[in-house]
Amino acid sequence: MSDEVNTRTREVLLVDEHGVQPLPDELAIEAALEMRLATDGGERALAVTMRTPGHDEELARGFLFAENLIESAEDIASFHRPAGLDGDPLPDRLVIRLRAGIELDPDRLERHFFATSACGLCGKARLDALGTGRLSEGPVIEPGLLHELPERLRSAQGTFQRTGGLHAAALFSAAGELLAAREDVGRHNALDKLIGWALDERRLPLAGHILLLSGRASYELVQKAARAGVPLVAAVSAPSSLAVALAEDAGMTLVGFLREGRFNVYAGAERLGVR
Amino acid sequence: MSDEVNTRTREVLLVDEHGVQPLPDELAIEAALEMRLATDGGERALAVTMRTPGHDEELARGFLFAENLIESAEDIASFHRPAGLDGDPLPDRLVIRLRAGIELDPDRLERHFFATSACGLCGKARLDALGTGRLSEGPVIEPGLLHELPERLRSAQGTFQRTGGLHAAALFSAAGELLAAREDVGRHNALDKLIGWALDERRLPLAGHILLLSGRASYELVQKAARAGVPLVAAVSAPSSLAVALAEDAGMTLVGFLREGRFNVYAGAERLGVR
Repeated sequence: MSDEVNTRTREVLLVDEHGVQPLPDELAIEAALEMRLATDGGERALAVTMRTPGHDEELARGFLFAENLIESAEDIASFHRPAGLDGDPLPDRLVIRLRAGIELDPDRLERHFFATSACGLCGKARLDALGTGRLSEGPVIEPGLLHELPERLRSAQGTFQRTGGLHAAALFSAAGELLAAREDVGRHNALDKLIGWALDERRLPLAGHILLLSGRASYELVQKAARAGVPLVAAVSAPSSLAVALAEDAGMTLVGFLREGRFNVYAGAERLGVR
Repeated sequence: MSDEVNTRTREVLLVDEHGVQPLPDELAIEAALEMRLATDGGERALAVTMRTPGHDEELARGFLFAENLIESAEDIASFHRPAGLDGDPLPDRLVIRLRAGIELDPDRLERHFFATSACGLCGKARLDALGTGRLSEGPVIEPGLLHELPERLRSAQGTFQRTGGLHAAALFSAAGELLAAREDVGRHNALDKLIGWALDERRLPLAGHILLLSGRASYELVQKAARAGVPLVAAVSAPSSLAVALAEDAGMTLVGFLREGRFNVYAGAERLGVR
């Protein structure tokens, strides 16, 4: 990921006990991306997200998949960057054309989100709405292996270390090999990019893989992981109540507070050989 | 804030060098809230957010204000919780009725968001789209006062300390007095709740106040603060590039990495008496 330009250096004033001094600081870049759908009749807006530029096509692919709007990489025919008044491609707009035969109703987006997150749904109905069933069994991971993953991610990334402003999502094999990692100011974007990458690599469903999240595990992140078929999600920080409920429904293993030689198991302890 | 029930205790397995042991863990509660608009012709969906239950009306009020859809607390005539099939109020739905004469087009929401965050806009156009001008001068804050704010927030809250899963937004007077604080699994929700509180208290614009954010300062948070007229925003973690750009445009003081006796000034150093 070190080839990505996702930070900007700027002079700031450091104020501490020694006084005030100017020093360079690296900021994580945040910018809007409007995803639009090309249709035969023209274009229509699909979603706007604040993201860190880079891997925009992966972001769109992963987002569409997570929202149940596409089922495979082949469902997207092409991406297009429209040109602005000066003739250069607009950095904040991406037009997606789906393959012939795929009909997509953008109004489904919000309805789908609400349907899958509503409080009153039982676990089965929630999974149905997500478009996913229960995850199959396996793999069984040695607890000690989990402790090594954050450091493997850190040595591969770099930006987070410098800015403190980016979230990371990383995919590992069951043996602990880092397969890919993505960073973004939005944690949902980092995961969308990672899933978009895996879709393009024809790796889905991600049975036998481990997903590492650099921060908290929200419902939305666990939902995306379940949709991609990831059986084990490990977060460096806390999960939310609904994230745990969904992990249980989906038969997913959910680990939190993976740091300093310890972790908590919130669901699916059998994949860690502990009960 | 200690009177709020926004956590749930659950037994988890702690895995560390000593082995595996069950222990109770407190989870931050996350649940969907669908905000709907009551109109003469019926109801229509406005937005869905994953939030920590509690202060839902403040959340809706602050959200509507931040999105430029209302201008004052009086623009909301009433809130209503529709009943479910069992006759009990639905916990995940809130219906908002605006006062007569206020017309609101929900389709404006996304357009507004895009208009205010688009990369190509110059600072002036961005401020116009936000519905805010440049903040007026003052107050001047002693740098040493800033260092005390995180601890004043921590002693008032509690939940974050226990779960590690909640974001906090807190409002202080220029003298450093904690006026109100709100916690949520979503940092934008915590700030919407806080601004919704301030609106209801008829405190806007928040000239002469300090806003403290427990995490990072994203564009969206600085946008909400600018809309509420807060001249000084201090974040415990990093700001993004676009957050800094907006703070400069708006004439706001933006402080980051406020911890361990130091901080960085990203914009508006004159309010701290340093340059």
